[in-house]
Amino acid sequence: MGLVVVKVGGSAGINYEALAKDAAALWKSGQKLLLLHGGSSETNQIAEALGHPPQFLTHPGGMTSRLTDRRTLEIFEMVYCGLVNKRLVELLQRQGVNAVGLSGLDGRILEGRRKDAVKYVENGKIKIHRGDFTGSVERVNQGLLQTLLDSGYLPVLTPPAVSYEGEAINTDGDTAAAKVATVFQAEALLLLSNVPGLLAHFPDESSLIREIPASRVGAPEYMGVAQGRMKKKVLGAVEAVQGGVGRVIFGDARGEEPISTALKGSGTVVH
Amino acid sequence: MGLVVVKVGGSAGINYEALAKDAAALWKSGQKLLLLHGGSSETNQIAEALGHPPQFLTHPGGMTSRLTDRRTLEIFEMVYCGLVNKRLVELLQRQGVNAVGLSGLDGRILEGRRKDAVKYVENGKIKIHRGDFTGSVERVNQGLLQTLLDSGYLPVLTPPAVSYEGEAINTDGDTAAAKVATVFQAEALLLLSNVPGLLAHFPDESSLIREIPASRVGAPEYMGVAQGRMKKKVLGAVEAVQGGVGRVIFGDARGEEPISTALKGSGTVVH
Repeated sequence: MGLVVVKVGGSAGINYEALAKDAAALWKSGQKLLLLHGGSSETNQIAEALGHPPQFLTHPGGMTSRLTDRRTLEIFEMVYCGLVNKRLVELLQRQGVNAVGLSGLDGRILEGRRKDAVKYVENGKIKIHRGDFTGSVERVNQGLLQTLLDSGYLPVLTPPAVSYEGEAINTDGDTAAAKVATVFQAEALLLLSNVPGLLAHFPDESSLIREIPASRVGAPEYMGVAQGRMKKKVLGAVEAVQGGVGRVIFGDARGEEPISTALKGSGTVVH
Repeated sequence: MGLVVVKVGGSAGINYEALAKDAAALWKSGQKLLLLHGGSSETNQIAEALGHPPQFLTHPGGMTSRLTDRRTLEIFEMVYCGLVNKRLVELLQRQGVNAVGLSGLDGRILEGRRKDAVKYVENGKIKIHRGDFTGSVERVNQGLLQTLLDSGYLPVLTPPAVSYEGEAINTDGDTAAAKVATVFQAEALLLLSNVPGLLAHFPDESSLIREIPASRVGAPEYMGVAQGRMKKKVLGAVEAVQGGVGRVIFGDARGEEPISTALKGSGTVVH
């Protein structure tokens, strides 16, 4: 069996216990896994509680991203690397799986270019925010991850990534997961969140798109409905499939057995 | 050269930049290092800010420890594994050292027995606090640490440890560091904090004890002055030396080149 890369989002409603239980059952049956996770919802809560509320920038293309100044980066690391990462590692350890939690900083596992200056739109005008700790993953330290997998450890990865200069950088988890899956030529990449998959009419869960053939992604029934963040998700999935990943599945992380369920073809399958 | 294990405390006043710079210079000269760190002072601050102020239990022997309920454990993980661990890893990465930050949960690196029921003294009476997530390190996953060292990575370790049942447990950093140093038969174990070393008359820095021969630790000039936490530190150091660690040095982490300075014999040397 090939590797399955599972990325679980950081929105409210994620069932971490069920995720760890399912991962443990699969792992013990011999399925090699690599987990990545987010933490945005809890980061927002902690940031509010610490008096440094989250701020988001809207980019010229319509996408939004978290403004990541130094203090935000610290809070981000507390939640992603401390709270959520160790929660998942502990849940897996309690299930008897020897998990190892690592950020992209550790061993330069997720490396990329820092984007210090970020364009954003305010009152219809394009402005530039400088000093941001953000960027995109361009390289993966596959050697370290392979060593861990070969030694029987289940890696649990989290942003931040590391810049070429060694700075911590906030990075998009879905894109990082796709990069990892592509480097490993994974059998499947699962992108689990708090919706059943890609929805043609968000948040109407009955409008779930069941499959997207990568070769036909440009067709109106797929991209005609995909806006903003969803469009980026679809294009990222197509890129992963074209890069050699077996399947990309957008699935639900709120219920029991979220990994097994997605692997059976629930959610949206890009193939 | 043998391995040097450096534990840097979590009190106020630690110069993390200087520590990372010094560690990087030594590492690049071929000195193998393994770092551990604390985070108690910043944990107290964040716990206060999040409305869950720290509570400490005084044990029948006079020692104190942090009451670690589930919420405290989460805050502890945020600060130790998120804020402080990633700060150190990032500072090392910026110096060109490929550091890997791990808690004792990860890969079961620091494993021990959970002490669920903790005796404490209140109004002169001995009481029992139940449901604590605390314990002491009894086993070290040397294999994983050795693999990392052999592959050129500098491990940066932090509590919590993991119980035999897979739960996260708050654990004493000095004791964990001594355990790691003993397992590796380290050349030296450095315990760095915000004082120059062991002080006969705390906080009078001019009362620094320069050396303690392990064979004479019971002599009145050493243990006569050692009370509570300091006594535990001295006995822990003696145990490490008797267990095969070359030297244990209590040194200062507030100034420049804290590791090199301690290795030159500043502070208190137990040999």
